[in-house]
Amino acid sequence: MSQAVATGKPFSWRIRVYWEDTDAGGVVYHAGYLRFLERARTEWLRSLGVDQVELRQRTGLAFMVRDMHIDFLGPAVLDDEVDVSVCIQSQRSASMVFEQIVRRVSDGRELIRATVRAACVNLQAMRPAAIPDDLIARMS
Amino acid sequence: MSQAVATGKPFSWRIRVYWEDTDAGGVVYHAGYLRFLERARTEWLRSLGVDQVELRQRTGLAFMVRDMHIDFLGPAVLDDEVDVSVCIQSQRSASMVFEQIVRRVSDGRELIRATVRAACVNLQAMRPAAIPDDLIARMS
Amino acid sequence: MSQAVATGKPFSWRIRVYWEDTDAGGVVYHAGYLRFLERARTEWLRSLGVDQVELRQRTGLAFMVRDMHIDFLGPAVLDDEVDVSVCIQSQRSASMVFEQIVRRVSDGRELIRATVRAACVNLQAMRPAAIPDDLIARMS
Amino acid sequence: MSQAVATGKPFSWRIRVYWEDTDAGGVVYHAGYLRFLERARTEWLRSLGVDQVELRQRTGLAFMVRDMHIDFLGPAVLDDEVDVSVCIQSQRSASMVFEQIVRRVSDGRELIRATVRAACVNLQAMRPAAIPDDLIARMS
Repeated sequence: MSQAVATGKPFSWRIRVYWEDTDAGGVVYHAGYLRFLERARTEWLRSLGVDQVELRQRTGLAFMVRDMHIDFLGPAVLDDEVDVSVCIQSQRSASMVFEQIVRRVSDGRELIRATVRAACVNLQAMRPAAIPDDLIARMS
Repeated sequence: MSQAVATGKPFSWRIRVYWEDTDAGGVVYHAGYLRFLERARTEWLRSLGVDQVELRQRTGLAFMVRDMHIDFLGPAVLDDEVDVSVCIQSQRSASMVFEQIVRRVSDGRELIRATVRAACVNLQAMRPAAIPDDLIARMS
Repeated sequence: MSQAVATGKPFSWRIRVYWEDTDAGGVVYHAGYLRFLERARTEWLRSLGVDQVELRQRTGLAFMVRDMHIDFLGPAVLDDEVDVSVCIQSQRSASMVFEQIVRRVSDGRELIRATVRAACVNLQAMRPAAIPDDLIARMS
Repeated sequence: MSQAVATGKPFSWRIRVYWEDTDAGGVVYHAGYLRFLERARTEWLRSLGVDQVELRQRTGLAFMVRDMHIDFLGPAVLDDEVDVSVCIQSQRSASMVFEQIVRRVSDGRELIRATVRAACVNLQAMRPAAIPDDLIARMS
């Protein structure tokens, strides 16, 4: 993890829970949190000036989730606002590992803790590829 | 509509309602029915021997919904089984109109009535294209 | 339509297109627009001070889509920002009709035009119910 | 794990990949596999005679995912058929751990490996609850 990231506040993205996110249990459907986690990672990339559409058109590359551990600590419900954080835990030439937390805004309660490994992939060949140098520079 | 379709039983596809389909109101989230309608149209195409992936690779064509009218007549709930019918109402060179009904299996109640116009589209150019002759032959 | 709404600018809600919204055609999956339309209606209600969770707990009422006509005029793609408008077209004691437009921010192009009738429903009985007076007052 | 489960073939549920499951990368959106995994667990419960709707109405109980580790080994694409297995790895009074594999039918390739811990929860109180004896009897 870069010094800058380690000492600064982690990136965070606010998300509102809508009807579409809930299920008949009255809470957010568990797979829905993965969408929230990805929105936050996408917005983190955008905040670094990384345009995923342009990246793909120029290089054929995209990030794909390789593995993920996720703890469901508490449920969010309709209308809740949550903050989703993005922290780089470690970085390698073709992948990186994120620590992400989903926290309810109203009471600060942690609802989700996730460790997500995303790999840089050549979409045509569906093979791992080195993260471009200019991206690595932006990320650290 | 072809004679064959007009006189025969409409194509029908059975779908189970899972947690993912429901919302905090305890019923199927309204946009979920559009997924059910499309699964049935896809299975109808498959039943005619149309392979959408092969079609796209060979011709660059896919079907896209252009407009839709949908009546939500009653709610489906978790674990319900529904039958989704597919009937061609009319057909033109580059589009066709389907009548579709979603009916609960247990009591035969109509839950959804939809009229869906799907157009044949060249995905690269995002422009309407004539439905290939071999498809038209299969459909009628 | 109330004078106020008729003369003022319609309510509008900005939405970003994420990976979750797209399909293998490279564009937003058609059912995804219904989620966008509902987010905008929900935010419109919130802007009027209507808390749907509180409404349901206090009165057992919720709004459900009864029918919808939707024109898919053009595709949104990954990373697009769209503005989703909400206009009351007509209002009755137990339902109202909205006109909604989804417009791409970058070029102002209309992507979706929808007419949506939503009914006030008692969720326990799954029956239509009069829209509470305080809501009607807020809406006009 | 019960002897019967250990020696028998694991429960498996076949699922078709539709447009709704894919994203602009041309493959199944990663969160979509969680929906597949849950459909298989739900069908496994059904195969044991467990009716989740009846269970909830009678006891107020439902199963909720508590944590999950998931490896994304390879992508499924539109029209793929996959088999999703369900194996009990361990069981406790209020939760159980499943091993699940998503395998493509056409070539037998493993696409997903997941370890899922689901807890029995009283939905009103949102608290862990003992799995009812009759369920435990059915599961072993």
